[in-house]
Amino acid sequence: MFFKLLKKSKKSKARLGLIKTEHGVMKTPAFFPVATKATVKALTPEEVREIGFEGILANTYHLYLQPGNKLIKKLGGLHQFMNWPGPLATDSGGFQVFSLGSGFGSGIGKILKPEQVGLRDNSQKLKLVKIDEDGVTFTSHLDGSRHRFTPEISIKIQEDLGADIIFAFDEATSPLADYEYNRKAMERTHRWAKRCLKIKKRTGQFLFGIVQGGPFKELRKASAQFIGSLPFDGFGVGGSYGVGDSLGRVDDVLDWVIPYLPESKPRHLLGIGYLNDIKMAVKKGIDLFDCAMPTRLGRHGVFLTNKGEMNILRPIHRTDNQPVMKNCRCYACQNYSRAYLNHLFKANEILAARLATEHNLWLMARFFDRIKKEIRMGKL
Amino acid sequence: MFFKLLKKSKKSKARLGLIKTEHGVMKTPAFFPVATKATVKALTPEEVREIGFEGILANTYHLYLQPGNKLIKKLGGLHQFMNWPGPLATDSGGFQVFSLGSGFGSGIGKILKPEQVGLRDNSQKLKLVKIDEDGVTFTSHLDGSRHRFTPEISIKIQEDLGADIIFAFDEATSPLADYEYNRKAMERTHRWAKRCLKIKKRTGQFLFGIVQGGPFKELRKASAQFIGSLPFDGFGVGGSYGVGDSLGRVDDVLDWVIPYLPESKPRHLLGIGYLNDIKMAVKKGIDLFDCAMPTRLGRHGVFLTNKGEMNILRPIHRTDNQPVMKNCRCYACQNYSRAYLNHLFKANEILAARLATEHNLWLMARFFDRIKKEIRMGKL
Repeated sequence: MFFKLLKKSKKSKARLGLIKTEHGVMKTPAFFPVATKATVKALTPEEVREIGFEGILANTYHLYLQPGNKLIKKLGGLHQFMNWPGPLATDSGGFQVFSLGSGFGSGIGKILKPEQVGLRDNSQKLKLVKIDEDGVTFTSHLDGSRHRFTPEISIKIQEDLGADIIFAFDEATSPLADYEYNRKAMERTHRWAKRCLKIKKRTGQFLFGIVQGGPFKELRKASAQFIGSLPFDGFGVGGSYGVGDSLGRVDDVLDWVIPYLPESKPRHLLGIGYLNDIKMAVKKGIDLFDCAMPTRLGRHGVFLTNKGEMNILRPIHRTDNQPVMKNCRCYACQNYSRAYLNHLFKANEILAARLATEHNLWLMARFFDRIKKEIRMGKL
Repeated sequence: MFFKLLKKSKKSKARLGLIKTEHGVMKTPAFFPVATKATVKALTPEEVREIGFEGILANTYHLYLQPGNKLIKKLGGLHQFMNWPGPLATDSGGFQVFSLGSGFGSGIGKILKPEQVGLRDNSQKLKLVKIDEDGVTFTSHLDGSRHRFTPEISIKIQEDLGADIIFAFDEATSPLADYEYNRKAMERTHRWAKRCLKIKKRTGQFLFGIVQGGPFKELRKASAQFIGSLPFDGFGVGGSYGVGDSLGRVDDVLDWVIPYLPESKPRHLLGIGYLNDIKMAVKKGIDLFDCAMPTRLGRHGVFLTNKGEMNILRPIHRTDNQPVMKNCRCYACQNYSRAYLNHLFKANEILAARLATEHNLWLMARFFDRIKKEIRMGKL
């Protein structure tokens, strides 16, 4: 059995579970650090595991472009290529095709300010990404070359990569897209979901369907109902969310969709990584998360702390002999001062990115430890 | 006792020794990986020690400019600042003042082609670095600001940093400088050497004098005789060497100077890191080395191997599932293929620099293990 539901909270919809793959298990709720181009940036696989993560998520779009899925398959698959022995997920490439491959202007994946909501239009139609019923033609962000993904191609690439968990190819809509566009994109995503289920052949890989529908209640419910009824091994919640009062925020969307997703299968909230959002989502019944945020912030000198974000480049840290967090037991906090980290970032040293990434992932791992403990103890 | 001579080879002037500092010992012959800005680029201190190095060398010029020696002193000294508990050396800043601080045009530290030797002139006189009897005024390579080093200032900075081994402030001449200029610079270096000995106050730090004289036999002998007679704790051989037949190469220079350096004190060949040169120099009686080469080459994708340098970015490595070196037991060779390393470098991933640095230093450490073993067994 791929997913085992171990415990349901009585205080919320939070749950403890166990995911079993050919490459080991994951205790849920769990976070996948992002290994975009077959490496969790700045760290070794051993370090990621020692910090406390059981699974990581790599990006199909990036690996298809560089070094190529055929090469990775020839070299023994992604696990072997990148020396990651544990559970591994790949996304479908859909999100990146629309956000990176569309000419950098779609706004997908960005959090919009309230005043921008009024600007909603069908920005999916940017000239560099062309969507038709069969698939998507897009432009490489690396060299401007033209490429095409269809549901069949996305699954084929993910089969070549050989991750344990793979995702159905979906259309991620821009936060600027209106109701009507979201409806069309959702319906297309539903047709693509069925094609993904049909084409998938390789065993030992578990396929997740993705719920879309943007910030609209009616669409989200319809999408969850449709996708949730298909024989996927798990479900992702993707796409964009609203920010004002009139549109569904992440928490609204989860309220709308979770009731339609089978309790016996794991649920993944795609691309959400802020701690408050994660805790909220766990309470609403989400089991899995992935996000580039903790690692990306780290590389830019932003340390996550239990009192919020700390930008180590601020002048106040230049002479400060304290660690970033006093009670943190990560390697950086145990061995280095804020002053040293400030120096490393100003001097553009590689060790800076390592230490910050390690700290942020450490904090994230301990956060998930606590979440699991709270569910176990009936406190969440 | 700072230095203990343990064994002298009967086949050459090679020797085994032991350096004792307040922060631990170093078995010589030994190599100092370079920690220019208070970090061996891409690695943690623990990794450097696990690879097999007992000491590292940081750069006074860089740390004076960023983050500043006063700050490092206030934060407990360089050992604590950078979390390096073992033996630590700092250079005098002299070499960088002339090579980096002189407007990037001096050619110091570069290996010249034979046809360039005819171009020798007094390029030390470039407008951005001004030398007088008292010291040197130079321009920061970071922001163009003006600074001044004298022998007294260099020692003060090195006392603030607090390394176990420090160096006298010397004038490094350009490979383009002629005999007459080298003579003047050498004599100034000799006067500065005495000032360094006079001003040094802090205990627990061992001061090395530096032999100069460029590629000229008469000057090198005079310099070794003079510097070797002063009460330094050890001696460095610095400056530039010739490439043609008419001027002294590194091996010639060592033949000239070693006989004048007291046997009871350690000898450091500054900035030389190619394996053949190191072996040659050990045979001529050198105990200590430092060089940015293995780490710098690594960051640019060049792996040192027992068959020469391998540029992992070459297209031939793109599909190659072999490790860089079959019999290498470093972390990179044990776990990753050339294809993966080629991918990491092309994708500009931080892990690329880590793995290549680790491999190159590993190779270097094993090379020094073998050198010590060969001396011990009477084979070198």
